[in-house]
Amino acid sequence: MLTYVYVIAITTEAMSGALAAGRRNMDLFGVALIAFLTALGGGTVRDILLGNYPVSWTQHPSYIYLTISAGLITMLIARFMKHLHQLFLVLDAMGLVAFTIIGCNVALQLGYPTVVVVMAGITTGIFGGILRDIMCNRTPQVLRHELYASVSLIVALLYLGLDERGVNHDINMLASFSVGLLLRLVAIRWQCSLPVFSYAPERWSD
Amino acid sequence: MLTYVYVIAITTEAMSGALAAGRRNMDLFGVALIAFLTALGGGTVRDILLGNYPVSWTQHPSYIYLTISAGLITMLIARFMKHLHQLFLVLDAMGLVAFTIIGCNVALQLGYPTVVVVMAGITTGIFGGILRDIMCNRTPQVLRHELYASVSLIVALLYLGLDERGVNHDINMLASFSVGLLLRLVAIRWQCSLPVFSYAPERWSD
Amino acid sequence: MLTYVYVIAITTEAMSGALAAGRRNMDLFGVALIAFLTALGGGTVRDILLGNYPVSWTQHPSYIYLTISAGLITMLIARFMKHLHQLFLVLDAMGLVAFTIIGCNVALQLGYPTVVVVMAGITTGIFGGILRDIMCNRTPQVLRHELYASVSLIVALLYLGLDERGVNHDINMLASFSVGLLLRLVAIRWQCSLPVFSYAPERWSD
Repeated sequence: MLTYVYVIAITTEAMSGALAAGRRNMDLFGVALIAFLTALGGGTVRDILLGNYPVSWTQHPSYIYLTISAGLITMLIARFMKHLHQLFLVLDAMGLVAFTIIGCNVALQLGYPTVVVVMAGITTGIFGGILRDIMCNRTPQVLRHELYASVSLIVALLYLGLDERGVNHDINMLASFSVGLLLRLVAIRWQCSLPVFSYAPERWSD
Repeated sequence: MLTYVYVIAITTEAMSGALAAGRRNMDLFGVALIAFLTALGGGTVRDILLGNYPVSWTQHPSYIYLTISAGLITMLIARFMKHLHQLFLVLDAMGLVAFTIIGCNVALQLGYPTVVVVMAGITTGIFGGILRDIMCNRTPQVLRHELYASVSLIVALLYLGLDERGVNHDINMLASFSVGLLLRLVAIRWQCSLPVFSYAPERWSD
Repeated sequence: MLTYVYVIAITTEAMSGALAAGRRNMDLFGVALIAFLTALGGGTVRDILLGNYPVSWTQHPSYIYLTISAGLITMLIARFMKHLHQLFLVLDAMGLVAFTIIGCNVALQLGYPTVVVVMAGITTGIFGGILRDIMCNRTPQVLRHELYASVSLIVALLYLGLDERGVNHDINMLASFSVGLLLRLVAIRWQCSLPVFSYAPERWSD
């Protein structure tokens, strides 16, 4: 099941990357690159941090073609995306949660300490979006809007907690996935967000 | 021959990095760092992605000195750069093509799938410029102007296509290099560019 | 001793990251992430560049907790930070110098050429601040203000020079540390800075 969700997830992330590139008037190539980076960048950063070579997408050419195609098709259907906004947010939420669980699994198998496993999950979940925003020269959205990165954190903690208590792996994945998805959708619906830290000292630069 | 072209290429890229740093009023150290990153950053990103350790410039101190010197000298001769604009564009085009072929060769030797070889070539070709623009806080130019990244793509495809057909290696490099250089110069001369994707939804943020 | 200084250093860097995140109105999670990246990002970039796996903080969970806590506590005490500005600058200077020496040691043990050792030291010293600024969408401060990156360079050169002359390791560290700290404080006090390169051609884009 996670594979299906993963394919949906990278497609959705690729589309979100393409739209961000469109806001910066990038050309066809830029759209393809940002789509790819948004979809597979989180996993890439995780693999590089953990020394998990070869980086996973280099062994799955089909994911490369899929994300680039999704990015280019988005150019054609962008005018209709507005009407799909709700669906888009649900798919993106599924992606966030699936990425997180996959990231935790990779770090677990490599034997990293628990806190690093959690960070690997979060990195996989949110770094694609962060790379997208850096490439498009804007402050990362995932660190400013409704609960997003924190959903990734909670999913990672839940997944590891159940895993340690010996819960069956499939049940654990289903439970963590459902709770995470629900949490994200609730956060979107009622605009829950973390406290914001606003710091604007006058005439003082650190 | 590729070595000569490579030395010219990293020198040119270092100069382009120094000019970008100058636009952001960076100090001497910033100029040196951006020059280095622009010239050798593409190959660094490629090596890290492919797990190709040690990263190539760490084994060639002379390239480090060369790029930093080129950056610093650019500060002194910046006022004359305007008159060298045409030459500069030709050298930069040579660099783009040479970097691409070198990047393909590295990935080929490591046995990566074809599509990854192509991406390694493109990464080597364009990521120095992307890192330069990220460090200088601007949207990557290579994804917005005349055919640039796409020239890198075409060179990589041509080079691999000829390689698979068993064409002699030297002839292949010469052919790919010439076609790529010509294509880039034509694109500059007649301002060919890829279709641009402009997306500006009103009051909707994804 | 270096361990104590290191702990102070990553705490200070984490706080500087949290303040930068606050200027961009990031949420609690964003503050924690930027704090972590500012404190441990320089060492991470160094380890990835040198292929020094596992990346050092993945083996020291306590550093992860420390930097995240420091970031979050900064949110609470931000209003008082103004009064601690002087202290903050001194701690930050200690961090810069300690990071540099640590970075050199890592590269030395891996047997890299001298110039790469110097670059590893500088990378450890300044890249946390560069990542912080990239994430917060601003031009890296360390490349524009008073002597900062150059202090890192001088410390690295001094440390390696004394090391090659067979100076006792502890004495060498103490000497390099003191000279670097002094230099940085002098630079702050009298606003010493490197020459700046300002380049603003009219109607010409490279």
